[in-house]
Amino acid sequence: MAATIPAKFRDLFTKQAFAHLGTLMADGSPQVTPVWCDYDGTHIRINSAKGRVKDKNMRRNKKVALSIMDPDDPYRYLAVQGVIVEITEQGADAHIDSLAKKYLGKDKYPFGQPGEVRVIYKIRPEKVSTMG
Amino acid sequence: MAATIPAKFRDLFTKQAFAHLGTLMADGSPQVTPVWCDYDGTHIRINSAKGRVKDKNMRRNKKVALSIMDPDDPYRYLAVQGVIVEITEQGADAHIDSLAKKYLGKDKYPFGQPGEVRVIYKIRPEKVSTMG
Repeated sequence: MAATIPAKFRDLFTKQAFAHLGTLMADGSPQVTPVWCDYDGTHIRINSAKGRVKDKNMRRNKKVALSIMDPDDPYRYLAVQGVIVEITEQGADAHIDSLAKKYLGKDKYPFGQPGEVRVIYKIRPEKVSTMG
Repeated sequence: MAATIPAKFRDLFTKQAFAHLGTLMADGSPQVTPVWCDYDGTHIRINSAKGRVKDKNMRRNKKVALSIMDPDDPYRYLAVQGVIVEITEQGADAHIDSLAKKYLGKDKYPFGQPGEVRVIYKIRPEKVSTMG
């Protein structure tokens, strides 16, 4: 059921475009917040920290969705429904630094908290819609 | 359980800021797409058209969520979990025109399709988180 991100929309992952990530609360209701993201050619990757609402939601229920709007044209966007296929701490510190580089132009993620454990979530797109 | 939008974040509804609206598919998985929105002082209002995925989702399951980012500062945003308390066609054509005015500077919504029935969805915020 895996879907691919159309080539002509992959530029969104090179821009400072946020993903508005929808996850499911324990009662099945949705929650949406903006997050940094990138694309490894197969999976959309999100980075969060252990223990946060979003972390708990994605461990409990693997179904997620997101929309990413072109910062240069709000009527051009990508909407993805997908599944979390991997949750890992491996490489997560380097990954958040690479996202800080992309979104903030900083080599090192500046918002880390003491004791915070970073986590990568890999999303396999299953349905992709585009506009624009 | 109704929550209010903090006064200092209400300016987001006066800007051309999109809501990334999360609804639930028939199988309970989330779907997120960007939509126009406004705030009537109590409810966040969305406008869609009868028969669309989002329309069907919100009729089937009243639980929704959204995030709205400040277009002038992506690290300032509002995240809302809420419930659809009213779905109405009454005033929906005038409402989509008012949203076209807000988002496009046009008096009349220019994207209407023949036979399209516009619908207003009123969301009662139940949990509000802010950043920035």
